[in-house]
Amino acid sequence: MQGQASQQAYDRGITIFSPDGRLYQVEYAREAVKRGTASIGVRTNEGVVLCVDKRIRSPLMERSSVEKIHKADDHVGIASAGHVADARQLIDFARRDSQVNQLRYGEPIGVETLTKDVTDHIQQYTQVGGARPFGVALIIGGIENGEPRLFETDPSGTPYEWKALAVGADRGDIQEYLETNYDDDADLDGGIELALRALGEVNEDGLRPESIGMATVDVESETFVSLTDDEVEEYLTDLELLAPEEDEDAGDETTEE
Amino acid sequence: MQGQASQQAYDRGITIFSPDGRLYQVEYAREAVKRGTASIGVRTNEGVVLCVDKRIRSPLMERSSVEKIHKADDHVGIASAGHVADARQLIDFARRDSQVNQLRYGEPIGVETLTKDVTDHIQQYTQVGGARPFGVALIIGGIENGEPRLFETDPSGTPYEWKALAVGADRGDIQEYLETNYDDDADLDGGIELALRALGEVNEDGLRPESIGMATVDVESETFVSLTDDEVEEYLTDLELLAPEEDEDAGDETTEE
Amino acid sequence: MQGQASQQAYDRGITIFSPDGRLYQVEYAREAVKRGTASIGVRTNEGVVLCVDKRIRSPLMERSSVEKIHKADDHVGIASAGHVADARQLIDFARRDSQVNQLRYGEPIGVETLTKDVTDHIQQYTQVGGARPFGVALIIGGIENGEPRLFETDPSGTPYEWKALAVGADRGDIQEYLETNYDDDADLDGGIELALRALGEVNEDGLRPESIGMATVDVESETFVSLTDDEVEEYLTDLELLAPEEDEDAGDETTEE
Amino acid sequence: MQGQASQQAYDRGITIFSPDGRLYQVEYAREAVKRGTASIGVRTNEGVVLCVDKRIRSPLMERSSVEKIHKADDHVGIASAGHVADARQLIDFARRDSQVNQLRYGEPIGVETLTKDVTDHIQQYTQVGGARPFGVALIIGGIENGEPRLFETDPSGTPYEWKALAVGADRGDIQEYLETNYDDDADLDGGIELALRALGEVNEDGLRPESIGMATVDVESETFVSLTDDEVEEYLTDLELLAPEEDEDAGDETTEE
Amino acid sequence: MQGQASQQAYDRGITIFSPDGRLYQVEYAREAVKRGTASIGVRTNEGVVLCVDKRIRSPLMERSSVEKIHKADDHVGIASAGHVADARQLIDFARRDSQVNQLRYGEPIGVETLTKDVTDHIQQYTQVGGARPFGVALIIGGIENGEPRLFETDPSGTPYEWKALAVGADRGDIQEYLETNYDDDADLDGGIELALRALGEVNEDGLRPESIGMATVDVESETFVSLTDDEVEEYLTDLELLAPEEDEDAGDETTEE
Amino acid sequence: MQGQASQQAYDRGITIFSPDGRLYQVEYAREAVKRGTASIGVRTNEGVVLCVDKRIRSPLMERSSVEKIHKADDHVGIASAGHVADARQLIDFARRDSQVNQLRYGEPIGVETLTKDVTDHIQQYTQVGGARPFGVALIIGGIENGEPRLFETDPSGTPYEWKALAVGADRGDIQEYLETNYDDDADLDGGIELALRALGEVNEDGLRPESIGMATVDVESETFVSLTDDEVEEYLTDLELLAPEEDEDAGDETTEE
Amino acid sequence: MQGQASQQAYDRGITIFSPDGRLYQVEYAREAVKRGTASIGVRTNEGVVLCVDKRIRSPLMERSSVEKIHKADDHVGIASAGHVADARQLIDFARRDSQVNQLRYGEPIGVETLTKDVTDHIQQYTQVGGARPFGVALIIGGIENGEPRLFETDPSGTPYEWKALAVGADRGDIQEYLETNYDDDADLDGGIELALRALGEVNEDGLRPESIGMATVDVESETFVSLTDDEVEEYLTDLELLAPEEDEDAGDETTEE
Repeated sequence: MQGQASQQAYDRGITIFSPDGRLYQVEYAREAVKRGTASIGVRTNEGVVLCVDKRIRSPLMERSSVEKIHKADDHVGIASAGHVADARQLIDFARRDSQVNQLRYGEPIGVETLTKDVTDHIQQYTQVGGARPFGVALIIGGIENGEPRLFETDPSGTPYEWKALAVGADRGDIQEYLETNYDDDADLDGGIELALRALGEVNEDGLRPESIGMATVDVESETFVSLTDDEVEEYLTDLELLAPEEDEDAGDETTEE
Repeated sequence: MQGQASQQAYDRGITIFSPDGRLYQVEYAREAVKRGTASIGVRTNEGVVLCVDKRIRSPLMERSSVEKIHKADDHVGIASAGHVADARQLIDFARRDSQVNQLRYGEPIGVETLTKDVTDHIQQYTQVGGARPFGVALIIGGIENGEPRLFETDPSGTPYEWKALAVGADRGDIQEYLETNYDDDADLDGGIELALRALGEVNEDGLRPESIGMATVDVESETFVSLTDDEVEEYLTDLELLAPEEDEDAGDETTEE
Repeated sequence: MQGQASQQAYDRGITIFSPDGRLYQVEYAREAVKRGTASIGVRTNEGVVLCVDKRIRSPLMERSSVEKIHKADDHVGIASAGHVADARQLIDFARRDSQVNQLRYGEPIGVETLTKDVTDHIQQYTQVGGARPFGVALIIGGIENGEPRLFETDPSGTPYEWKALAVGADRGDIQEYLETNYDDDADLDGGIELALRALGEVNEDGLRPESIGMATVDVESETFVSLTDDEVEEYLTDLELLAPEEDEDAGDETTEE
Repeated sequence: MQGQASQQAYDRGITIFSPDGRLYQVEYAREAVKRGTASIGVRTNEGVVLCVDKRIRSPLMERSSVEKIHKADDHVGIASAGHVADARQLIDFARRDSQVNQLRYGEPIGVETLTKDVTDHIQQYTQVGGARPFGVALIIGGIENGEPRLFETDPSGTPYEWKALAVGADRGDIQEYLETNYDDDADLDGGIELALRALGEVNEDGLRPESIGMATVDVESETFVSLTDDEVEEYLTDLELLAPEEDEDAGDETTEE
Repeated sequence: MQGQASQQAYDRGITIFSPDGRLYQVEYAREAVKRGTASIGVRTNEGVVLCVDKRIRSPLMERSSVEKIHKADDHVGIASAGHVADARQLIDFARRDSQVNQLRYGEPIGVETLTKDVTDHIQQYTQVGGARPFGVALIIGGIENGEPRLFETDPSGTPYEWKALAVGADRGDIQEYLETNYDDDADLDGGIELALRALGEVNEDGLRPESIGMATVDVESETFVSLTDDEVEEYLTDLELLAPEEDEDAGDETTEE
Repeated sequence: MQGQASQQAYDRGITIFSPDGRLYQVEYAREAVKRGTASIGVRTNEGVVLCVDKRIRSPLMERSSVEKIHKADDHVGIASAGHVADARQLIDFARRDSQVNQLRYGEPIGVETLTKDVTDHIQQYTQVGGARPFGVALIIGGIENGEPRLFETDPSGTPYEWKALAVGADRGDIQEYLETNYDDDADLDGGIELALRALGEVNEDGLRPESIGMATVDVESETFVSLTDDEVEEYLTDLELLAPEEDEDAGDETTEE
Repeated sequence: MQGQASQQAYDRGITIFSPDGRLYQVEYAREAVKRGTASIGVRTNEGVVLCVDKRIRSPLMERSSVEKIHKADDHVGIASAGHVADARQLIDFARRDSQVNQLRYGEPIGVETLTKDVTDHIQQYTQVGGARPFGVALIIGGIENGEPRLFETDPSGTPYEWKALAVGADRGDIQEYLETNYDDDADLDGGIELALRALGEVNEDGLRPESIGMATVDVESETFVSLTDDEVEEYLTDLELLAPEEDEDAGDETTEE
């Protein structure tokens, strides 16, 4: 299609189109997402499940400080993949947006409204000059009017709703697994298991609870809940996905940074 | 006329003319429109019909979140093709514009007025520096003074009024079909059928209701109405356009992004 | 004079002079004007005539939406050639300017004053950075103190007054025809005929009323009036310029865009 | 001195010095002045004379709209050469400056003060970024304290006072004629004749009154007065400079634009 | 992966992504961190330890003016590595942030809150144009709710929490030593010894108290305390790390600048 | 030292350092000073002398309008060399500064204070982006507390105080003459003679009073006084420097512009 | 390390990092410092000594106007090396800062506080776009709480405290001399002698009092005092450093500019 020299002409300018109508900076921001470890979201009848792969650079690093799952509001959780510092900005944006909604209307913000406010914010950084796009994808999951909702925001500022999805490294393989194994009638437990099995697909040596983050927002409590390592380990054992404890080696390619 | 090297000199600058008087960024934005799946608008004596081709990247994605038809006001619908996040900005602009008109004048905004407000907004992004053009085309259809009106906005900020038109992928073929088969005396049903047949022209294997979005604004109710999948399927069956249910394969070239 | 490589150095910067004292962006904007179909203005003792060539991309496009003649005020009409979206901005500017004058001074704005306000606005876009010039030429015609006046604005922001002129595609040939055939004593009918004959010069196969826009502002009524298709057809028949009805083929080079 | 490639490095930046201390953009703006037809100013004991060469692109263009001589105030006239739209901006600036002076001090502005206000304005466009210099030279002539004064402003923003000068095309030849033939004791008629003879020097085929603009500000009336075509023709006849009436051919190189 | 020429295209622009989703300016800022001498943080049950390697360019330079450990608040210390002047800006930011928190809420700022305020500030400099990233990493240590906390901020604006970490020159070797020898049950003394031993690993000829900066914030006092040279010397003697006094040679590669 | 290609990299940016610590734009502005004709200042016990070489482009140009000596305040004169329009800006700045001082403190501004205010203004244009440096050097001379003071401002914004100095073309030769012949005990007449003899050194054919500007500020009157042509001619005759009257030829290289 | 071509890519942008984490513009500003003649600071028990090498371009230049030692406040002196006009800006900043402190707190500003205010100001010019760094180093010496303090500010905005230091040309050799000969117990006289001897090291032909600037701030008086030429000459005679009087030759490489 286009040669390398020609491509360079367009990807240097932040907010301009290439001759074939592409926005290279947005596409490169998507590459930044792929450089992050995988994050998975699953929607079930009983609620939404967020599950993330956390690579820790060193055993001395506090796992909790590698933030990939965030509570945006009581009833909304957000998982991210990609440029961590950018994710933090969007999470902060989402939290303020939730609070403002609560103050102004006296009720929790809708998950779809929240998602669209975030994507509108993201889009601005792809059209107006003087800044670069956000190098992060978010999975926003929560309960709205008693129904579980699960959204994705991508670096172009487009919102999508999903039954189950993966973002970040190995997205293709994980998504394929989700598509093959998704069960419309699964309960929350089923959702957790699907997420872990999908993550297991791209980790041949099994999974360690320390390198997994997991949270749910269920329909009954409408409350964001993080799973403990023990709870995750129990699931992994049940699913025969538990890897033996060993020296952790930080994955070079997909460590969050 | 101009060689490739020379062309590159002009298309990097956002808002400048080439020696032959063209605005390359605007032309590239039109390419962004062609990268989106097709959207069709048909005006009949009984109202306007909007019909869009929705490609879903994954069976787990919620079809409703791939937004290509939007209600701008009770009496106005908008179909888009091209860069989805950009479309959302213009839809928001159109909705606010409609509300302001209602508040200020106590009556629904005219479809033509609304269209021109939108195109004025688009034009600014093609002349003043610091931002890129919008990579999206809109079909704005509705009822004004009891008459159905159907407009197009293109990335240069020019408004056009149509009896029937297509934007996005395969625009040329679809438009040709519309020109050959448009009937000035068709009723709303006829309009819906024309739109589906035109879309069928470029989908040899038939159409699935899940990958089609359809809405009307009829003269009588002056109200935007979306068709259900069942309604669409019924039309497809009647028109012998119904494709067998199968694994959906996201079209690489024209998926909205 | 200057080689191609050297020229490129100057035409990329919006507002700078070339070594031989030219403003390339303004000259390229003039090329944008030539890319538009022709517009003609004729001044007669009884009033001014505006006549435009309208190419319609598709038989399904509403001709009225291809705006090349605009009413700026009751007593002033404007025909444009070139970038349509830019023209719309200047027309809006002219209309607001007319209204402000009416409000402030309680009388209609003079045609010359209006023209100069528009050209001052245009000039700013050629000297101050951060925007490109307007890619459009206007013919502004109207009645001032009982006298018909006819002006041109070009992309440099220079106003000219004319007895008769053409802008846009084929300007050279049409202007030559006007110069040879202009009659100082012609009445409004004569002006209309001159304009149509001039347009006929560059359309060997004759003219169709649907592809012509025509308006007058006469001295007596001081009112902008658009001619109907029937009226135009009658003139064409009388002048033996009427082309047979046929499939319209959009002219590639000079369609408004 | 400097090769071509090296020069290009400096003339692209609007407001920077070249290694040999030149401001190329200002020098190129001077070239823009030379692209305009000639304007001449002559100071006599009885007043100042402004005389301009007006090339009309077409016999249908109204000569009066090719503005090269302007009344800035009752007692001050300005002739311009170069980029017409730029000249209009400076004329407007001069007129506002004159009005403000009248309002503030209750007396007409001095010709020297007015000139320096204009040149200060011009200089700003040569030092501060974000705009290009003005591509025009002005001859400002008028009466101050009963004395005729005649000034030049050039694109660098430098004011000069002259007894007689030419700007624009053929400046060199005309100025040489003025220097040889200037008479300190000439009256207003003598000044008019000197200006016309100087213009005749570079128009071998003689002059036509229609292509000449002429105005005076005399000491007695302290009033700007434009000469009619008949008055100019009379002078030309007396001076044996009158060319036979013929088809006007616009000079390609020096038409105002 | 990418050639050198291609890389240059992306690292010149401050805030844009490379085709593989990297932000070169942020990565280069990390190189600036590595150019600074090492800083170490250790968290123990009894408090946090900060320890820095201070290279003095000349024996006449006052060691205290080479600031690498700073008191941010009574209960928080910060060690830095990298561009010193940048570090000072972030320290000032942290101090103001602490004071504002004290004034607004009447209580000391949390160490995590403080860290995240700092990283949000850092992130802005990586996304919005017109400035470069901060070329410095900070180790922020203190007591929060009676618990010792130890954080890192990196040039991308990402916060990490650690049990023990090193930043700056030789980060890899020192971190490896820390990982091998960290003891969860160590007391403050143990933390000091671990830090010094780790620093000794990359200084084969032993350490001099004058080239070491050391401070603690213990759980009991919740107070930032700097160690004196004598105290450091005592530790070094005990640990058999004390180098003989000699002519100091400033390290070329890793002197702060 | 640096090759030509490398140098070009630095002199294009207005306000940046070259690898060897130079500011090319400032150095090029100094070249602009050298392109102007010479200006000389001499301080004597009885007052200061300003003397300038004025090249007139044409005998029809009014010599008084080639402004190289300016009265800044009753007790301060300024001579300039270099870009004339830039000089005017600084003279205006100096005059306003003098007036403000008089208004605020009720006494004339000190010559040193005035000079430093001017150089601070100049420096800003060498450090902050968006404008170019001033291409002019000033000699500021006057009386302060009964003492004659003589200063230079250069394009970098550095003030120097002198007993006698030259700026502009031939600075080297003239300064050498001044150094050899300066007499600490000279009176004002001696100062005038020194300046004229120095100027004569670089004008082998002698000097004409019309091409010389001269002014003094003496200690007794503390008043700026311009010398008439007759006074200058008398000095030239006495010094045997008077050139025979002849056709003036403007010097190409050093005419003010 | 890096080739020349690659380096050029980074040093053109004002505020960006090179791939190895360097800020070239700051490093080039340091080269600007080296282009200035040497300045020396010495701290003794009795006070601080500032000593500068002043090269005068011409015997007619007033030495006092080559400002390299400045009084910032009664108790603080500042010596500079590098770009003189930049130094003046920082001196002005320091003076205003001192005055504000006196007004706000009713006591003299601390030398360290003053230094850090200055370096914070300097740092801003290295991180935020639109301006270049300051091309100057300062030695700030004074009395604070009865103690002599001596600081350096460098172009990166880093403050250092010293017992004795040199900046500017020959910094390496002079600093080496200071390190070898510094005596912690020296009195003010000893400090003056050390500074002169150090300067003598790099001036083989001896020193002239006219080309040296010297000042002290002693503990007792806490007052900035400049030494007279006679006092300096006496020291030089005593130290056998006095050069014979001769024609001064301005040093090409290190003259302040």
